[in-house]
Amino acid sequence: MSDSEVRANVHRVIDERSESHLQDLCTLVAQPSISAHDEGVKECAQLLADMMKKRGIAAEVIPTPGQPVVYGELIEDPNAFTLLCYGHYDVQPTDPLDLWESPPFEPTLRDGRLYGRGTGDNKGQLIAHVFAASAWKEVAGRVPINLKFVFEGEEESGSPNLGHFVREHKDRLACDLVYISDGGLHPSGDPVISLGNRGVVGITMVAEGADRDNHSGNKGGVVPNPVWMLTHLLATMVDPEGNVLIDGFYDDVRPITEVETDLVARLPFDPVEFGQTMGVPRVEYSQQEYYQRIMLKPYFNISGISSGYVGPGSKTIIPATAECRIDVRMVADQRTADIVEKVKRHAAAVDPRVRVIAGGMGAMEPSRTAPDHPAVPAVARALEEVHGTPAHINASGGGSLPNAVWPGILGTSHIGAPYANADENNHSPNENLAVDCFHRGIHASAEVFWHLGQMAEDA
Amino acid sequence: MSDSEVRANVHRVIDERSESHLQDLCTLVAQPSISAHDEGVKECAQLLADMMKKRGIAAEVIPTPGQPVVYGELIEDPNAFTLLCYGHYDVQPTDPLDLWESPPFEPTLRDGRLYGRGTGDNKGQLIAHVFAASAWKEVAGRVPINLKFVFEGEEESGSPNLGHFVREHKDRLACDLVYISDGGLHPSGDPVISLGNRGVVGITMVAEGADRDNHSGNKGGVVPNPVWMLTHLLATMVDPEGNVLIDGFYDDVRPITEVETDLVARLPFDPVEFGQTMGVPRVEYSQQEYYQRIMLKPYFNISGISSGYVGPGSKTIIPATAECRIDVRMVADQRTADIVEKVKRHAAAVDPRVRVIAGGMGAMEPSRTAPDHPAVPAVARALEEVHGTPAHINASGGGSLPNAVWPGILGTSHIGAPYANADENNHSPNENLAVDCFHRGIHASAEVFWHLGQMAEDA
Repeated sequence: MSDSEVRANVHRVIDERSESHLQDLCTLVAQPSISAHDEGVKECAQLLADMMKKRGIAAEVIPTPGQPVVYGELIEDPNAFTLLCYGHYDVQPTDPLDLWESPPFEPTLRDGRLYGRGTGDNKGQLIAHVFAASAWKEVAGRVPINLKFVFEGEEESGSPNLGHFVREHKDRLACDLVYISDGGLHPSGDPVISLGNRGVVGITMVAEGADRDNHSGNKGGVVPNPVWMLTHLLATMVDPEGNVLIDGFYDDVRPITEVETDLVARLPFDPVEFGQTMGVPRVEYSQQEYYQRIMLKPYFNISGISSGYVGPGSKTIIPATAECRIDVRMVADQRTADIVEKVKRHAAAVDPRVRVIAGGMGAMEPSRTAPDHPAVPAVARALEEVHGTPAHINASGGGSLPNAVWPGILGTSHIGAPYANADENNHSPNENLAVDCFHRGIHASAEVFWHLGQMAEDA
Repeated sequence: MSDSEVRANVHRVIDERSESHLQDLCTLVAQPSISAHDEGVKECAQLLADMMKKRGIAAEVIPTPGQPVVYGELIEDPNAFTLLCYGHYDVQPTDPLDLWESPPFEPTLRDGRLYGRGTGDNKGQLIAHVFAASAWKEVAGRVPINLKFVFEGEEESGSPNLGHFVREHKDRLACDLVYISDGGLHPSGDPVISLGNRGVVGITMVAEGADRDNHSGNKGGVVPNPVWMLTHLLATMVDPEGNVLIDGFYDDVRPITEVETDLVARLPFDPVEFGQTMGVPRVEYSQQEYYQRIMLKPYFNISGISSGYVGPGSKTIIPATAECRIDVRMVADQRTADIVEKVKRHAAAVDPRVRVIAGGMGAMEPSRTAPDHPAVPAVARALEEVHGTPAHINASGGGSLPNAVWPGILGTSHIGAPYANADENNHSPNENLAVDCFHRGIHASAEVFWHLGQMAEDA
């Protein structure tokens, strides 16, 4: 068979196996793996490893101080190009449960989408690499390159042990490139290449008033109210337009270059369609501002706040404590430790009664791969073959994949190419993966393997 | 028997019955009656009515559109002075449950206190009137005055039906004075007379961002965050010192007079001891400021706020909605409808995305009885007889009993005399009633009946 016949057969086999691929994904999704609650994660690791072994990949479950890493290898030729595919099999918590139209761990097909927690984020994407490798093995007896798989179980909890794991297994993980499929395609459906990610650091703020709840009638006016403390402190940190007011917060933000502005200008933009993917009538920003705010600017988010009583009826109290959770989304070259320090200093100056605690999620540094890396055009060609349309190149994604470990520890660059539909509702109720996106992802991985092999041969 | 022998015997009988009084209170407390959750309230009403009937009071459970009123009468002489004793048998919710040292509905004696939800607020106080009447019946064959009892089951939910009930039964409830025992003694243990109460109105604010939670990495910066909306709106409503910034909020606040300032100056004040009753190291205000802030100034309280996720682990979302609960504590002559209107107008001007909903608890107007009412010295003498020390006279209590219905509908003044210990932890975990306060309350009611009878005879 010619190379092109082999490739065609690989894609034909992927199509023929579509039913069993979907079935295997359902099996994976049906296994809860909420790292935040330590719910079912280890069971999911074993299930995933077994699924990989069944397809001829030397897979094992490697313990860490937290949740295990599922590691696998397909080494065809020790001298050949080696791609490390990174993904995560843990998922977000499911609440609010009552907003799910079908139970989160009962994968359900509706209107061409598979609904369930973890369908898009990230089980349906990491398994695409496995299925693509399997198809190459079946058709050609081998994959065009060497593959290593690192599927971790703590990404949704901030990957607290990934750095340690990579450092400990540095030699074993040696590779030429790290490839990550996570997040969604461009809302237009076009493929996307992501060369970096924002950083993130979690901060918890706890305000303490009295050591007990007090009656708001009998004591209202003389007992400190921790919700008011938090409110007033937060209002000094960020203005109503979202600008961060903390001294020095923007010091290390890399200025946006003309090249970046041009890249952004080439991205498609439909404010109504984009709005629908996030649940607002339309995006209220210009194209340039929209993309810059997601990719190239930091964001100071409040992900949760809680104090007192908001249940049925009423409870007339001055609450004893109030807590809020913040995740700061950073861009190069901000550093997590520096940002935490600045937030703490600000809070101490404004209201020393509020405790500021870093953590709650693993801190991740922002990370970017140079746009002239030789693998970029190879991956771009692969995606274009599958999608029939060129990939958009993002200097950075908005999210915070733990990419900094690859250049930082392995000295390897990373390229991301998400496979999910943009409205996958990751981290929300009714998370889903469009079935055609799922199948296309498997084809994409198969093509990426091929084109990287070609690139290595041509080099 | 002479009058003084009869009185002495009444108090002796009250002492002799102390075990059974405590037992009956335990029975009442063991019956949950959380009006906010409609939990056990009607069962508690029946239990209370039975307990009153057993003691010779014509008692009945009168339905309302909400929870029933337990009404009772002891009419000795249609022409005699008639006192209406008001109390409430419903209780606050119990969460956070894990902070209770003994279960809220298993009344438990520890260190001379009876712990349990509703011990102090208000079961242990309303039943004192019943036990006192019973002692008079046993010793003298009659109570020195006519008694009417209105024990409602929705006070902790804002007494939404009390006004309607009083209006409907206006003739039957006709009386010369309304007497209320609720709340705590002065922290020094001295008796207190309260001539009024602050008003209260509940307000819920709901901020809505997108129609779903969004991933704070992928979408952070372009999706409106409802917690930030609420934070910024709230910060424009109240300054860090607690001053309300809403236009016109203070317009109808009755200026504090010299007489009131003098009354306050006579109240005992120990900043460390007072602090301990509310769970802070010490009160941070001067005596004058402390009392004025509780009695004569309004307070804009946040009793609860909730959005997103603050559970174990982390959830990196931009929440779809955020909600906070406010209770505004008003003073004469502020009016609930006017305050709500001003809050709504302010919110609409600052951020129309935030919905402002009045309610969630019944609105109560502030109410005050004139300090020269002839019953004031009679009640004061009764309390001094029992406590051996003069009562402090408060122009207003801090809480929001539904007193406005008495002058408003019956045309009758009201006088309050709380029986509980100041650190009863009402509305908090570990609510309790000191056993000696409980017994002293029964003696106090017996004396109040006597002295009001004397006052009427002398008139």
